[in-house]
Amino acid sequence: LESGAFIQVRRMLNSLPAPDVAHVIESSPPKTRAVIWRLIDIEREGEILPYLNDEIESQFLRNMDSEELLTITEGLEADDVADILQQLPDRVIREVLQLMDKQDRQRVEHVLSYPEDTAGGMMNTDAITVRAKTPLEVVLRYLRRHEELPEMTDNLIVVNRRDEYIGQLPLRKVLVSDPNITVREIMVTDVDAIPASMDDGEVATLFERNDWVSAPVIDEQGKLIGRITIDDVVDVIREDADHSLMSLAGLDEDEDTFAPVLQTAPRRAMWLGINLLTAFLASSVINMFEGTIDKVVALAILMPIVASMGGIAGTQTLTVVIRGMALGQVGSNNSGWLINKEFLVGIINGLCWSMIVAVAVTLWFDDTLIGMIIAGAMVINLVTAGLAGAVIPIALRRLNIDPALAGGVVLTTVTDVVGFMSFLGLATFFYM
Amino acid sequence: LESGAFIQVRRMLNSLPAPDVAHVIESSPPKTRAVIWRLIDIEREGEILPYLNDEIESQFLRNMDSEELLTITEGLEADDVADILQQLPDRVIREVLQLMDKQDRQRVEHVLSYPEDTAGGMMNTDAITVRAKTPLEVVLRYLRRHEELPEMTDNLIVVNRRDEYIGQLPLRKVLVSDPNITVREIMVTDVDAIPASMDDGEVATLFERNDWVSAPVIDEQGKLIGRITIDDVVDVIREDADHSLMSLAGLDEDEDTFAPVLQTAPRRAMWLGINLLTAFLASSVINMFEGTIDKVVALAILMPIVASMGGIAGTQTLTVVIRGMALGQVGSNNSGWLINKEFLVGIINGLCWSMIVAVAVTLWFDDTLIGMIIAGAMVINLVTAGLAGAVIPIALRRLNIDPALAGGVVLTTVTDVVGFMSFLGLATFFYM
Repeated sequence: LESGAFIQVRRMLNSLPAPDVAHVIESSPPKTRAVIWRLIDIEREGEILPYLNDEIESQFLRNMDSEELLTITEGLEADDVADILQQLPDRVIREVLQLMDKQDRQRVEHVLSYPEDTAGGMMNTDAITVRAKTPLEVVLRYLRRHEELPEMTDNLIVVNRRDEYIGQLPLRKVLVSDPNITVREIMVTDVDAIPASMDDGEVATLFERNDWVSAPVIDEQGKLIGRITIDDVVDVIREDADHSLMSLAGLDEDEDTFAPVLQTAPRRAMWLGINLLTAFLASSVINMFEGTIDKVVALAILMPIVASMGGIAGTQTLTVVIRGMALGQVGSNNSGWLINKEFLVGIINGLCWSMIVAVAVTLWFDDTLIGMIIAGAMVINLVTAGLAGAVIPIALRRLNIDPALAGGVVLTTVTDVVGFMSFLGLATFFYM
Repeated sequence: LESGAFIQVRRMLNSLPAPDVAHVIESSPPKTRAVIWRLIDIEREGEILPYLNDEIESQFLRNMDSEELLTITEGLEADDVADILQQLPDRVIREVLQLMDKQDRQRVEHVLSYPEDTAGGMMNTDAITVRAKTPLEVVLRYLRRHEELPEMTDNLIVVNRRDEYIGQLPLRKVLVSDPNITVREIMVTDVDAIPASMDDGEVATLFERNDWVSAPVIDEQGKLIGRITIDDVVDVIREDADHSLMSLAGLDEDEDTFAPVLQTAPRRAMWLGINLLTAFLASSVINMFEGTIDKVVALAILMPIVASMGGIAGTQTLTVVIRGMALGQVGSNNSGWLINKEFLVGIINGLCWSMIVAVAVTLWFDDTLIGMIIAGAMVINLVTAGLAGAVIPIALRRLNIDPALAGGVVLTTVTDVVGFMSFLGLATFFYM
């Protein structure tokens, strides 16, 4: 590229909105990314970073010194600064914090003191507070002293003189009310503030259920410490939904689609290794029936059908249950009903498809016995699959193991082993 | 249950917020649902319906007559009414519309005239408009004439006298500005309005990228016809994310976790049937090598390993690509790079794991040749899996077939067929 073209690209990049630049970077292969990043003005880098996938973000951050880090965090919201710092080694975090002015440092340290995946880690410290006894007229005058209200300010927050949360004052009520009444007369007090320790998934559920744009956050003493806005909640919703999808394939939800080959290969290798162990387990089951297969070679031809149908049926149940768990629908009060349901679905579909398979196989090999054997094995395996698909994630969650990540492996191990065992076992019984 | 308990449950249900009641219903088995629904006051049913899963919603709706439908739609926003009506037969829609008063009917008809999954179908008609030349003081007086501003009103919308969209007036600027200036001086004009025909997924991307709370919607003539709010966008984000997860298992994203057995079984059966066909295809490949298996029974024991490792590797690639597509990262400009990358990852992991498998199998069967054969087959199948996992979704999308739904079946067919063919083919070549 000649320098003229570079200047044009740079101009274009720096005129695009930050989220669009982030999207261009995420959709580019690694080498292009490095070039693009170098073309972006350092003052804009901080604005762009929060929109990037965590993995790419930390790559860029790793190459910066504390001075550069200070420059890019200037003007960012406290939660975004905290997100950036959390990706760095402790030593660098301390250096950057020391370079900040006192007010900024305190704000960021406050957010940093809560884990990233809690309400405290998601919050901003830009809430505008008012007191209940203030007349609206004074509130309006107070607002006019601001140069601009923080983005996503739909409510002012009402606190008492100990800074404890009392209620919210919706701007949409302020604007339609008589300026002479006080905050108390129109404030909303039936919405609870969010405790800083609440898990981010729960925060997202609250926002989704109640259609909030922002919500106040309090510490254990009930003191107002910040507020959470819907844009950060949307990110959590997106990540949680991606988590189930990616984990079922043994992938991290932050997986970068365009990561370099040498970074992707070792990560995927781990998962392949785990699955290799389960595949060997299945093979050793087949090995137990070597003699039978040696005598009836049709068994070798047909055995993948039984295992694969079980795998499919089990995966369907597993996916539904994991999604239900992610949405908070599946709990101890209804998991019994759910397991029972999937058991019955397994029986119905097992009976239905095993009959069709029995006819097809009987015609193919001109042997009624093998048709009956595969039908029996399929009923056993589809019922097992339905049960396993429901029981495994519920059991894993009780053991505090991520059901989306571990569920798939455990399930296919069960359906493979039971599939081969039932088919070859029945065959051994009837043929040998 | 005795009637005393019923009254208590009813009181509790009717005091819970609508989204919580919806959650209780969704988390309950079918019979409990019917009981809960009967306990809810009819005036509240309309409020609860929009929070329910589409499937459950249409079940409840099917049992209502037009009078009841009119009652429950009263007081709802136009887009929620449209969503409810869209689930009903045309005859019932017409009946309900005729029962409405003229203004409501026009509003709902307007939204109904756009497909449900477009900006037009998502919008509400409750935007507050102002003219550019108006002084802020007059705007404030005009607002005060409202009893309450619509929820999620963060901007007033500036239109000209032909009702064409010009810009937005953020309330957070109105509140800090001198009342004597005009709308024109502080309005924001660099944000484009959303065309009514825009796909809902694109709308969601715009909201996510730009951190909007609401956005104006225009028709083809540039006339303002409504606005979209973030709460409806969050629903789209949730549904789109669920779509990939559920489709990969052949399920609908609206699948109801607690649907009755007799409703779930036939739905799942279809997918099992499709997979049965691909399983038979794989079996017929094995059948081609009957003679070889008959001679070397170890092949029957080991062949599932090759197929299953290919399936795992392919699913990982497929999942990453499908997620990348859903996020709009994968396009024609970078799909070549991506296919190439997954090909290389396949080679690396193929070589790495095939060596380990070669050693393990050689030791197990005390036969170097079979170790070499399985290693060769695994390299072939893992490379094929990487390529197929990337090419299949990209090709399916070009053909306008949903890659998440069809991708999994096509992929496992490829990895099964190639896995069995390469392993048994190589074995036939060396042993026969």
